[in-house]
Amino acid sequence: MERHFQKQLDTLNVRIIEMGSKAEQMIRLAMQSLVERKPEFAAQVEALEHEVNHMHIEIDETSLRLLATQQPVAVDLRFLVTAMKINSELERIGDQAINISQNAQTLLRLPVLKPLIDLPIMAEHAQKMLRESLNAFVNRDPIEAEAVIMEDDRVDALKNQIFRELLTYMTSEPATIPRAILLILVSRSLERIGDQAVNIAEDVIYMVLGRDVRHPREAKGE
Amino acid sequence: MERHFQKQLDTLNVRIIEMGSKAEQMIRLAMQSLVERKPEFAAQVEALEHEVNHMHIEIDETSLRLLATQQPVAVDLRFLVTAMKINSELERIGDQAINISQNAQTLLRLPVLKPLIDLPIMAEHAQKMLRESLNAFVNRDPIEAEAVIMEDDRVDALKNQIFRELLTYMTSEPATIPRAILLILVSRSLERIGDQAVNIAEDVIYMVLGRDVRHPREAKGE
Repeated sequence: MERHFQKQLDTLNVRIIEMGSKAEQMIRLAMQSLVERKPEFAAQVEALEHEVNHMHIEIDETSLRLLATQQPVAVDLRFLVTAMKINSELERIGDQAINISQNAQTLLRLPVLKPLIDLPIMAEHAQKMLRESLNAFVNRDPIEAEAVIMEDDRVDALKNQIFRELLTYMTSEPATIPRAILLILVSRSLERIGDQAVNIAEDVIYMVLGRDVRHPREAKGE
Repeated sequence: MERHFQKQLDTLNVRIIEMGSKAEQMIRLAMQSLVERKPEFAAQVEALEHEVNHMHIEIDETSLRLLATQQPVAVDLRFLVTAMKINSELERIGDQAINISQNAQTLLRLPVLKPLIDLPIMAEHAQKMLRESLNAFVNRDPIEAEAVIMEDDRVDALKNQIFRELLTYMTSEPATIPRAILLILVSRSLERIGDQAVNIAEDVIYMVLGRDVRHPREAKGE
């Protein structure tokens, strides 16, 4: 029984990694669609979203079933609760990729505003954070998780830079406003993906160390 | 022991309601600050956020302790898992209220762009959805939860209306762009609060009926 349970936990682990890689692929395709002006990627993003949503339900059900039937304690309990939390984050990351893809489709029906430089860099960075947060989960590595949390500042800095540049476009040429706003919304989706990778990293730290790092000021009683 | 456990579940229930009412108060104060141009409310919003963050950690810890020590099954297990999920949503709603408050502070340093009509209506609606989703949780009422899910369309419609109106301002008068964008961001925060109330409602339906309504298409295997 004990060994069977361990095998089920391992399977759950693998499913979360698969789901994470699908979510990452969604971001990559949505950005590729935008940057290379290829609307045909939208259908692939949507197909992946259905898979991610399927996995969301499946992983939740599996986790709950294991909680109910195995009544795990200590590290296994924390693993299952963390699996459910990461599952939610990944589903939301998929939602953000859908938002990016939909805004991209609208942008592709309009003339090019400017060559996109910072936005793809920001997307690369957010994807890297996601990948590393899931690596930290697989390797039960709180150091790698801490690194993800530190990287979020870079994504925020890029978001602000993109915003300032687009504001200049809008102010000097009002015809660019709708396109500029769509690009700002894409950058906000990428920012949220970075935040969600941070959430995953914090969940990993909690799982491994049993320590809640989500509200440093509150935890110290300040 | 059994009775003691039930009492702990009741306490958890009450704590979630208290946290929800603090999150709702944060939205109300942030919007009041914006609409009545009173920057002094920002400090209250921040103070409430610290309380919400405290409760976030506390509720998570309590739920996990009860999962570990009581090894609940069936309805109690679903209640505890749902409590943890709603706890996350409420913490994120607090984050959105902070976003609104911060954007409001920036707006209050600039001249009035226009009288705010639709934005307060949208905020009222999002708060109502939050309140009703928490009522559905307290009353274990899937019908009330369904009603919250239906209301989300109204919030989305208001968001689109606000966007179109602000776009007109920006296009005709570029000097309004920074203010218009801040107002658009406030409307996006309110939209997300509506989405989060929908998430809570879906969690309640799951808790009561043991049925996952989050991805209707996928659940039917389409």
